Amino acid sequence: MDALPDRPRFAVVGAGAVGCYYGGRLAQHGHDVHWLLRSDYDHVRQHGMEIHSKDGDFILKPSALNLYHRPQEMPKADVVLVTLKTTTNNRFQELITPLLHDQTAILTLQNGLGNEQQLADLFGPSRILGGLAFVCINRTAPGHIRHTDYGMIKIGEFGRPISQRLRQIDTMFNASKVECHMLDDLNMGRWEKLIWNVPFNGLGAALALTTDKIINHPAGLELARQLMDEVIRTAHAAGFNLDATLLELNIRRTLTMGAYRSSMQIDRESGRAIELDAIIGNPLRTAQKLGVSTPRLQMLYALLSMQEATPAPHQAVG
Amino acid sequence: MDALPDRPRFAVVGAGAVGCYYGGRLAQHGHDVHWLLRSDYDHVRQHGMEIHSKDGDFILKPSALNLYHRPQEMPKADVVLVTLKTTTNNRFQELITPLLHDQTAILTLQNGLGNEQQLADLFGPSRILGGLAFVCINRTAPGHIRHTDYGMIKIGEFGRPISQRLRQIDTMFNASKVECHMLDDLNMGRWEKLIWNVPFNGLGAALALTTDKIINHPAGLELARQLMDEVIRTAHAAGFNLDATLLELNIRRTLTMGAYRSSMQIDRESGRAIELDAIIGNPLRTAQKLGVSTPRLQMLYALLSMQEATPAPHQAVG
Repeated sequence: MDALPDRPRFAVVGAGAVGCYYGGRLAQHGHDVHWLLRSDYDHVRQHGMEIHSKDGDFILKPSALNLYHRPQEMPKADVVLVTLKTTTNNRFQELITPLLHDQTAILTLQNGLGNEQQLADLFGPSRILGGLAFVCINRTAPGHIRHTDYGMIKIGEFGRPISQRLRQIDTMFNASKVECHMLDDLNMGRWEKLIWNVPFNGLGAALALTTDKIINHPAGLELARQLMDEVIRTAHAAGFNLDATLLELNIRRTLTMGAYRSSMQIDRESGRAIELDAIIGNPLRTAQKLGVSTPRLQMLYALLSMQEATPAPHQAVG
Repeated sequence: MDALPDRPRFAVVGAGAVGCYYGGRLAQHGHDVHWLLRSDYDHVRQHGMEIHSKDGDFILKPSALNLYHRPQEMPKADVVLVTLKTTTNNRFQELITPLLHDQTAILTLQNGLGNEQQLADLFGPSRILGGLAFVCINRTAPGHIRHTDYGMIKIGEFGRPISQRLRQIDTMFNASKVECHMLDDLNMGRWEKLIWNVPFNGLGAALALTTDKIINHPAGLELARQLMDEVIRTAHAAGFNLDATLLELNIRRTLTMGAYRSSMQIDRESGRAIELDAIIGNPLRTAQKLGVSTPRLQMLYALLSMQEATPAPHQAVG
């Protein structure tokens, strides 16, 4: 909980689209960023990173990048940015432990519910911060990132009010072309984001439909509202008093969003594991623990679980 | 409601797999069957029908078939067998009216709920009979039918007890290699069949999964039970006192069924319209009219409705 040094060392664990983009913006603006790469290591070491962003393209040459293949090779960091897919959270211990000194802060920018708790269980709650990334971003090839829309992040301490280190990180992001806001209540923010993520990631993946196909269909619009209502009622039971107007606000936003492919739909159609537990399963388990009736959330989880047990449709049918 | 003549004239409206098979069995056994064919007319006129059946193959040569392209060309019938897909029920008036004399009985062997009522609204309730076909059957090419499993039918009067004409039809089918049973309460039989059709046709089509993939997944098994429970509670509210043991009976039967592709899954994957209203929509509307809470049935209807508004997955992604 101490303040960070003036020029903190960042370690980025999970160099997919989100890790490369947000870590990349910090590196672009002179921060000391160290990257753990797995499959893309050789390519990035040779060619660097190329980021096409609606907020301005930039290239990070190999000479400007601190790249590592194993966490044991990395120096201790002051801030670990966790940008792994939540489907690989079982690797937290192995990948993060070598990077920690006594005061290292861990900021997870992952999707959904439960990531901070999992990190806190392993590394102690006082280190943990969380962030929500509102961004449409893709890794199109090794070292190639395409940032097409949005980009704001909201960060907060895990179960604590805004701290000095949080303000420092907020300032650094905002000075690095990343719009950043601080949350008094991180979990409130997580639940607020789930209002959108549950219906549109969930239904988008289950049906292989973009947001417009869901929301412009009367039955889809009604179902989206019903799922949002189940999320809001669960959040209320969990002590997060989400404003009821958020439901219609999310509907209105989605109506003007166009044909948006959610990350879960993209993962599903690409044959990758979807972030089922973080986005659908953990909210459902919260509802069940608190006795909140959420039949549609439960059914959505069942549908996606069954699909995950089989190959993606376009692979199965060919 | 009068008895049928000793050698009644049958008209088959809807010469797909079900129409060709059950009409074909009657023709094979010497009954007077007249067929209305649309797309397959030219092929069947030239080559006849070829039925591969687990109960014995048979061929009907063109010379043994009474084939028509338009209902106006057909003689009046004593029994009209309606075997159209329910997605074309809007053609009842046009296709059936020319076939009726004062005493013509209309027996629909279509899937789901509401077909008898639609026929009764058009042609008067006293003509109407209904039947449930428990059969796995496919039209593999024009004039080619493959009957792979089951085959029994259960027939009943529409809202009336077993009649003389029903007994006559029952006898004719049983003498034509079709196991036939009579129902005291046709609608009770329809609801009973929906216990299976709602989860396995519905989920099979929505997820492109065969029955084994659904029932052998813990979440799928639970969801199937929940959907069955919603159907049974709706039937109860509608006055059909389905035995609660039917739920587990249907689960057990499905567990031994193997990898079964439901008709709705086949239709969906073939890019054809699914029988959404007959199998899912009409039970849902009954529940809503009677104030029965069926959130999963409603969600299933919403999912399938959204999918129907878009091409089948393998066409969209391919």
